[in-house]
Amino acid sequence: MFNNRMMEILRIKYPIIQAPMAGGITTSELVSEVSNSGGLGMMGAGYMTPIQISEQIKEIKQLTSNFFGINLFVPSEFKIEENELEIANQLLQPIRNQLNTHENDKVELPRYKNVLQTFREQIKIVMEEEVPVCSFTFGIPSKEIIAELKQHNIILMGTATTVREAVEIEKSGMDIVVVQGSEAGGHRGNFMNEFQDSLIGLMSLIPQVVDNVSIPVVAAGGIMDGRGLMASKCLGAQGVQMGTAFLTCIGSGANEVHINEILHSHEDHIVLTRSFSGKWARGVKNKFISKMQQSEISLPGFPVQNILTQGIRKASAAKKNRDFMSLWSGQSPRLAKKQTVQSLIMKVMEEAKNINIGRN
Amino acid sequence: MFNNRMMEILRIKYPIIQAPMAGGITTSELVSEVSNSGGLGMMGAGYMTPIQISEQIKEIKQLTSNFFGINLFVPSEFKIEENELEIANQLLQPIRNQLNTHENDKVELPRYKNVLQTFREQIKIVMEEEVPVCSFTFGIPSKEIIAELKQHNIILMGTATTVREAVEIEKSGMDIVVVQGSEAGGHRGNFMNEFQDSLIGLMSLIPQVVDNVSIPVVAAGGIMDGRGLMASKCLGAQGVQMGTAFLTCIGSGANEVHINEILHSHEDHIVLTRSFSGKWARGVKNKFISKMQQSEISLPGFPVQNILTQGIRKASAAKKNRDFMSLWSGQSPRLAKKQTVQSLIMKVMEEAKNINIGRN
Repeated sequence: MFNNRMMEILRIKYPIIQAPMAGGITTSELVSEVSNSGGLGMMGAGYMTPIQISEQIKEIKQLTSNFFGINLFVPSEFKIEENELEIANQLLQPIRNQLNTHENDKVELPRYKNVLQTFREQIKIVMEEEVPVCSFTFGIPSKEIIAELKQHNIILMGTATTVREAVEIEKSGMDIVVVQGSEAGGHRGNFMNEFQDSLIGLMSLIPQVVDNVSIPVVAAGGIMDGRGLMASKCLGAQGVQMGTAFLTCIGSGANEVHINEILHSHEDHIVLTRSFSGKWARGVKNKFISKMQQSEISLPGFPVQNILTQGIRKASAAKKNRDFMSLWSGQSPRLAKKQTVQSLIMKVMEEAKNINIGRN
Repeated sequence: MFNNRMMEILRIKYPIIQAPMAGGITTSELVSEVSNSGGLGMMGAGYMTPIQISEQIKEIKQLTSNFFGINLFVPSEFKIEENELEIANQLLQPIRNQLNTHENDKVELPRYKNVLQTFREQIKIVMEEEVPVCSFTFGIPSKEIIAELKQHNIILMGTATTVREAVEIEKSGMDIVVVQGSEAGGHRGNFMNEFQDSLIGLMSLIPQVVDNVSIPVVAAGGIMDGRGLMASKCLGAQGVQMGTAFLTCIGSGANEVHINEILHSHEDHIVLTRSFSGKWARGVKNKFISKMQQSEISLPGFPVQNILTQGIRKASAAKKNRDFMSLWSGQSPRLAKKQTVQSLIMKVMEEAKNINIGRN
């Protein structure tokens, strides 16, 4: 039904990419099922160790012979500020006590040089394992890394939230740019623009990016069905990347509590918060977000705050308690369904085909 | 090229409504030119006195025999808080001095009962003059007013920012709902949801509203061309309401400084502020917004703050100084052009017709 440059590059039958959601959601089953159903499955590997990555790549290769991809977080320099730590721990300790979790007592705070080291090792695995596609969030890797990946014939995708970021991604030599609209769930991918200036709705973002880059543009944010796919195409995107729509699918590694929250949520309950990780991200409002809201801007940055809240998020999930988990979701939760990956992809394509745009 | 219920109701040839931008932008020339070109011209009458409204309606009737519309602001109760006034005036006085404006010395602060009285008189004029279409922002008028307007065969449109608001608009008996995406320029129309929870991108907002109401849905926010029109149609809207795209057209009453700012702006310079009017609104970032930002949430509400900044905005505009004017714009300023209304409408329709969505 469709055919374009993006689909040729990614060797996919349908213009649908499964968003690389980090934190255990993109199981080998989910990723391979997407690739086997004609889309591009993506590992959200930002938080994974090189060994975990290596193991999952091998697993996915057992399950599909089609192209699949991996997403990594480009590290930014950060410092640990004692006063921020204090503010955060004062707020978090009562919650840790309530949930009876002591995990953070033994957790070591991250250091930039270690994060950078891990990133280099992640890249090394991607090359060794010859993962067909590698996408990046939170920035653009160094020229050297891009050159090396290209030498290994790995297709590169960047994530942009503004025209400026998309233009830089093209300039860096990447093959495809994913534009993340303000509708998108999970972490904001802004890396050149301030968070506040980078919340552009897809209706505005797609055409303005398309007019300013020549590499294929993929739309991400709030897209759940054939209507969103066709709208993105009209605006000039060559395809879509869908996160929340796959998160609630059978085979997703998302916690059942998380899935149920999305299935029962409305667009006006989906908010932006930086209290879970130190980076702004979109999800279903809960007690944790409300509790932290007032001190939100004083909290440590990513990945420090992410480590500080790790024990709380785990304990809350283990207790099936929605209150202190990160319930990431885009702005279209009313359109989420529990279904198989194949059913989702087939329905999107069927709907797209049948849309009556009223043209003669 | 198109035909649907919304177009039948509004008796328009093209599914394009010119957004009713208040503050002198929607001149009789602009409104009538839109209606004469096959769209629906709309008077932004929120700030106008009943006499001004009456005069403009008569003028427009001279210029077009086609349908046109008027938009009114539904008043909400407000109180004047002395401490808020003090904060605002402390911030505003140095700017007044700098601009050498004394207009606010003689301005009387608004009272709710007077605002309500004016609204009733505005409604009366709309009925007397038999304006074909009346749309509302900031809420839903009383049952009595809706019933009266309907008795006069006036077509009613509401403005919604969430599904919940759209459902209430349908329940109230209005004929059409305009959904305002987070991309939209000017004032946010939220009236049931808090501002923060009502910034939904059109990619998410349109399909979720369409699934939950049966009256026609019109999309507003960041739509500037045929791509946006077709995308809105794919998502389920029956047409579009465009503001910024008409604001820069020949015949618009917008200040030249304002028009030039939009023509030279980028999507990441368009921000939300409540410092001009007390209500959140989207426009090009300038010195006034930056100066007020830190105290923004402590300022008086609408319409009090709007009155307090009136002299400053006027003086800044008179001096052709961008720094202290409200430069409202949606999130797609890169797509704005200076052109005639007819050229804009024809190009939108031509583009829409020629979009290649890659379907076989």
